[in-house]
Amino acid sequence: MIYPSLLQNLIDFYKKMPGVGEKSAERMALSTLELSEKDIDDIAKNIVLAKEKLHNCKICGHLTDQEICNICSDDSRDKNLICVIEDYKSVFSFEKVGNYKGVYHVLNGLISPMDSIGPEDINLSSLVKRVENLKNPELILALKSSIEGETTTLYIKKIFEKKDVTISRLSYGIPMGAEIDYLDIITLDKALEDRKKISE
Amino acid sequence: MIYPSLLQNLIDFYKKMPGVGEKSAERMALSTLELSEKDIDDIAKNIVLAKEKLHNCKICGHLTDQEICNICSDDSRDKNLICVIEDYKSVFSFEKVGNYKGVYHVLNGLISPMDSIGPEDINLSSLVKRVENLKNPELILALKSSIEGETTTLYIKKIFEKKDVTISRLSYGIPMGAEIDYLDIITLDKALEDRKKISE
Repeated sequence: MIYPSLLQNLIDFYKKMPGVGEKSAERMALSTLELSEKDIDDIAKNIVLAKEKLHNCKICGHLTDQEICNICSDDSRDKNLICVIEDYKSVFSFEKVGNYKGVYHVLNGLISPMDSIGPEDINLSSLVKRVENLKNPELILALKSSIEGETTTLYIKKIFEKKDVTISRLSYGIPMGAEIDYLDIITLDKALEDRKKISE
Repeated sequence: MIYPSLLQNLIDFYKKMPGVGEKSAERMALSTLELSEKDIDDIAKNIVLAKEKLHNCKICGHLTDQEICNICSDDSRDKNLICVIEDYKSVFSFEKVGNYKGVYHVLNGLISPMDSIGPEDINLSSLVKRVENLKNPELILALKSSIEGETTTLYIKKIFEKKDVTISRLSYGIPMGAEIDYLDIITLDKALEDRKKISE
């Protein structure tokens, strides 16, 4: 064995991270040893605390260390506008954009008959209950354009069909700055279908 | 603040790692949360232990959790052949190659008058003592080809000048598989100078 086992364990830990290969894991483990003892103690405590204290918001399912997340408890946000997403990582993406002033609902999964994941296995019933208490709410479905995403979108559309709920989805189209020549045909087809009138 | 502070601390930790940017650090922090509680506890303990228990080998300065590292305590290795290196990371590189059967001496730095690092500031006096007890030893200087590396190489050469010590350095030359057309001129010049006769 080339590495002392305590170092090898660190390397194995880093190798579990997305996009981290053998070489990077080694460099990261070695540079971890160069941190101060205080930094090391802090991060060890923080890793355990983060796992222990961070859980899903009681209302929307987003990640929080409170009972209710900072977005749901923000009075300036429009509670009638709910962006429905697959997992809490998307919340961070939308919040980085910074223009969205509504709230979220994290499904924690998508309906997938192939994997025996039904509507009852994802965070959907709480969405239904949430919407019941709102007046003319709008749901923005921001789910990926996979079979599971489409299935879940259709299912949610159906649940709220006869209720006073506006349902929209994110637009499909050409990513900003993309070369049209290199775009895949399905995206191009969607961009054509979803074209927007710009004349008066 | 977009991220809960416990998560932000994790992101900040990963951002300190070499080659890890904002985006990767975020992905790594989020995937850390997906580890099991047991894995989290294990790694938290391991980070602290690695920092606490890993130190320099009493003989060569390599990283070990013992008093004397596994290389110095390996009877099958040639104790008269000492590869002198800047830091213990190089030991791992040589050991991965796997062909070197001598031992190492980790200087833990290089002489650098510009940074007021003199011979007494690096792990040199222990090398002198080590060599005194050997018969016809060979020192392989494997230091980088910077001003500091060259200065240190010259200094070591001078220390052992009048003693019965063979001193060699790694060869300079063309990296295996490199295109000669794209090689920098200094390397090409060194490769010419260090050329090896292959005719009988």
